[in-house]
Amino acid sequence: MRKNNKFRIAIDLLGSDTSPSELLGPILALHEELKEKVLFTLFLPPDLLKKIPSAVHAIACDEVITMEDDPLFAVRKKKNSSIVQGMLLLQRGEIDAFISAGNTGALFASSQIMLSLLPGIERAALVTLLPTKKKEVAVIDVGANLSCRPEHLVQFALMGIAYQKSRGIEKPRVGLLNIGTEPKKGTPELREAYQRLQDLSQQKGSFSFAGNIEGRDVFQGDLDLLVTDGFSGNVFLKTAEGLAASILEFLAENSADLPASHLKASLSSLRHRLHYAEYPGAILCGVEGIIIKCHGTASIPSMTSSVRAAMHLVQHSFLDKIKAELLHTP
Amino acid sequence: MRKNNKFRIAIDLLGSDTSPSELLGPILALHEELKEKVLFTLFLPPDLLKKIPSAVHAIACDEVITMEDDPLFAVRKKKNSSIVQGMLLLQRGEIDAFISAGNTGALFASSQIMLSLLPGIERAALVTLLPTKKKEVAVIDVGANLSCRPEHLVQFALMGIAYQKSRGIEKPRVGLLNIGTEPKKGTPELREAYQRLQDLSQQKGSFSFAGNIEGRDVFQGDLDLLVTDGFSGNVFLKTAEGLAASILEFLAENSADLPASHLKASLSSLRHRLHYAEYPGAILCGVEGIIIKCHGTASIPSMTSSVRAAMHLVQHSFLDKIKAELLHTP
Repeated sequence: MRKNNKFRIAIDLLGSDTSPSELLGPILALHEELKEKVLFTLFLPPDLLKKIPSAVHAIACDEVITMEDDPLFAVRKKKNSSIVQGMLLLQRGEIDAFISAGNTGALFASSQIMLSLLPGIERAALVTLLPTKKKEVAVIDVGANLSCRPEHLVQFALMGIAYQKSRGIEKPRVGLLNIGTEPKKGTPELREAYQRLQDLSQQKGSFSFAGNIEGRDVFQGDLDLLVTDGFSGNVFLKTAEGLAASILEFLAENSADLPASHLKASLSSLRHRLHYAEYPGAILCGVEGIIIKCHGTASIPSMTSSVRAAMHLVQHSFLDKIKAELLHTP
Repeated sequence: MRKNNKFRIAIDLLGSDTSPSELLGPILALHEELKEKVLFTLFLPPDLLKKIPSAVHAIACDEVITMEDDPLFAVRKKKNSSIVQGMLLLQRGEIDAFISAGNTGALFASSQIMLSLLPGIERAALVTLLPTKKKEVAVIDVGANLSCRPEHLVQFALMGIAYQKSRGIEKPRVGLLNIGTEPKKGTPELREAYQRLQDLSQQKGSFSFAGNIEGRDVFQGDLDLLVTDGFSGNVFLKTAEGLAASILEFLAENSADLPASHLKASLSSLRHRLHYAEYPGAILCGVEGIIIKCHGTASIPSMTSSVRAAMHLVQHSFLDKIKAELLHTP
């Protein structure tokens, strides 16, 4: 897929909470740093075209899908929006990855309309990383599917396993988000998904199944992957983000005049670890293409780390890893 | 309801993670402190009977419903368990409130079998308080009902409003937990509940409706009540508890040798605020009786604050407030 051994990555400067002109500087700096490895394509408003160096491929879009737009309607009507154009480049195989901080629903809807689902996948899902006490846990789905059948949860698990394998984890430890640990807890869908994942882990041996996990235990850091429907996953993720932000704000207010010390260094490391905006965005997986949805706020650090995450996913053949995971599933 | 102007409160020493003999000391100390105001009834194992002063009413139970028991089955079979016996005292009007750290499912099932639902309520629900940046927010339901119809969510809202009114908040500000703020976000049930709550807030004027709230915004502290189904509410609560505990542990490890200072005091206040176990347990509301379910772990501080919470609820006629809220609803 890669051209001249370079990663072909498209970045959407539209639709974020940060204006395209504010995003442009940091993205061009990233281009300078990575230009030997990455061929960038930037989607931007027409008035910014003149600020783009000739080595950068830029595409002007005169339509923007906003956060207020109805996703499906917007995708059908705004053919010249950055989101639709980005999917088109993925569809034609002209880029390896598409990064956007735009309307999640529109990214999801356009991917479903314009790209093929991977073999064995019935629903695309969003996977993201979350810091815990020990290591980062991947959470799938964090918002694409409000309700799921057991087979969808199993497919999410296999995509999440492929994701963690692409991050170098050989035998991921997988848990199912539930409101108690006993196998019979939760909805009928969760009970069936529990059984299927337990059977699969024994048949495949390529992951271990930790059973049901409560929200409170995820932060102990013993899991590599948390599987959930998109509603609960979104509640889980945003609750963690909101509480972490509120505690960090409190600590910042109260430790501003702390002299250099072990504690000051620890607080700073805590701040760094909990600063979710510095993490890459969520990966929309299940379709023929690598799509990363960045945080709408604090898009600059999120976009920068998303570019590095995209390079890593391309290099480690993330889509092929998903296909292999599903192919070897009875 | 009260006898000689005293609160009649029964406490279940069985079924908690803390042993009855460990719980007994702190509960007897509480009896000493409150004996002019409270008539205590204690449920305990037969071997502890001899340690009880004559002024305390004690009931020996030779059956325990464990966390592993199937709730409905256990309630039907273990008639001499503390949970079934506690419900019996509520049913007969012999106590004003029942406090237990036992099996939540069994508390719920026995309340449904043995007590009447309040007029206009179709499903009992669990409400609990959570600390935020500004004030405590009540969350309903945190685990009794896995899925809910719109009318159930509206009934939960009215019970939560009555609860916050009993805590002195005249016009509670109510939000609906969702994965986005727009009225059309979420499941069909949430969309309908949104409309009904908006209409009700305009008709009644006794609460204000803040619309859909995402998990991350709850901690800003602008809400008095967060309404949700029991699955999402449980995920929300446990995620907050787990992340708070993990951050507190980190801070404790890193600030142990901090000299007395403004920061030390702040960290200690943060610790106190986030130490969820010190909050009263969740109130099982919707039935003819006041039932508080304490945390299974750290039951001592949770039981102590639950006794005070129960006194407050009885004194402020919590059940009558729920009835009034439902009576005045079109």
